[in-house]
Amino acid sequence: MRYELYYWPQIQGRGEFVRLALEEAGADYVDVARMSGGEDRMMALMQAPGPKTPPFAPPFLKAGKLLIAQTANILLYLGDHLALAPKSEAGRLWVHQLQLTIADLVVEVHDTHHPIGSGLYYEEQKPESARRAEDFRAHRAPKFFQYFERILAHSDGPYLTGRRATYADLSLFQVVEGMRYAFPILSKRLAKKHPHIVELHRKVAMRSRIAAYLKSERRIAFNQMGIFRCYEDLDG
Amino acid sequence: MRYELYYWPQIQGRGEFVRLALEEAGADYVDVARMSGGEDRMMALMQAPGPKTPPFAPPFLKAGKLLIAQTANILLYLGDHLALAPKSEAGRLWVHQLQLTIADLVVEVHDTHHPIGSGLYYEEQKPESARRAEDFRAHRAPKFFQYFERILAHSDGPYLTGRRATYADLSLFQVVEGMRYAFPILSKRLAKKHPHIVELHRKVAMRSRIAAYLKSERRIAFNQMGIFRCYEDLDG
Repeated sequence: MRYELYYWPQIQGRGEFVRLALEEAGADYVDVARMSGGEDRMMALMQAPGPKTPPFAPPFLKAGKLLIAQTANILLYLGDHLALAPKSEAGRLWVHQLQLTIADLVVEVHDTHHPIGSGLYYEEQKPESARRAEDFRAHRAPKFFQYFERILAHSDGPYLTGRRATYADLSLFQVVEGMRYAFPILSKRLAKKHPHIVELHRKVAMRSRIAAYLKSERRIAFNQMGIFRCYEDLDG
Repeated sequence: MRYELYYWPQIQGRGEFVRLALEEAGADYVDVARMSGGEDRMMALMQAPGPKTPPFAPPFLKAGKLLIAQTANILLYLGDHLALAPKSEAGRLWVHQLQLTIADLVVEVHDTHHPIGSGLYYEEQKPESARRAEDFRAHRAPKFFQYFERILAHSDGPYLTGRRATYADLSLFQVVEGMRYAFPILSKRLAKKHPHIVELHRKVAMRSRIAAYLKSERRIAFNQMGIFRCYEDLDG
């Protein structure tokens, strides 16, 4: 089956968590909005009165007759179909729980530069961003990193669930990538205290399909429009 | 099986979405932290080095040998086991997608009074809250309500998926309840434009087990410690 991914073509954003899963599995997919006329097709699909399961926002995935939205939900589906998650109920729920916790962290990263409104520019909310980012650096980022470090320290391998990489590992890799871009100073401090997370990032980056993807043109560079943005003021 | 729910005993919060599902299904469950010594047990379970699937935060559910965290993930599990979701893959994913969108809305409600940091008091972030709430009232709340209204208008019954109530319907009911408490003025305005949501709320409130629960002592009253808080300044 050829999957159709719909996401903003200019950024990694939340779509990147899906792209990484598709790439790791060597899946046949089209990144629709990056094709000619594709962004219009994406908008049309969102606004069409027809579909029974309309997305609230991108990313969404067409998989045969299914139209699936919400990043973690798409990954739940791909985890089953592309063998990127355990098959047991307990294992599936655990990996999904990890993914939802990563999603919570991603919201908090986004809100460091958009604490007031996602429809406003960063420049319209700079003082509030500075305060929110201070709290993020001091409390929230360390709390999330500690949590994932603890899980990796107790795991039987380099990955969150042991020796096999799941979609949650790919997502945690992406968080580390994004943090390094957006918060280079904070990231160095976090790296020292969380060696297992650093190692997970290294292992994922070395996986052959991921390594090939990261070097390809399919990987959009980080930039100042995505979730992870590099504003010196916010890195302390 | 007797389920054990672990959540802060003083508030509805995110735990309430799980409580409503357990109540609707007539499930056998204990709200552990509301028992004598229960909050200590909850904290101990979170900090214990032992469990293989530690929660990042409450709520979490013990179901036999499983320890499941993240509200939407708990509901995914209960949806299957308590017949609160369709059985088909397409139906399960759709209800979960709706739940994750409700979860996004809940984060935005929380951030109207905590835009800077969840560890700070509201009184320490009042000007920022006023700005964030203004954006929420003008843009975000209407956008979410429009989305759910549109789905209900196209559905074959009073509920999101038609004639059978799912856990997402219970959660949407709870959002309306919370909005009426926290944003009474905004809620009246939203109600006029979203009659299907008003009707869904009414239908859920009339379901016999939910009606009994709402009248019982098990239902904690809304208060100024939960996600939905009533600050006049924020209601415009």
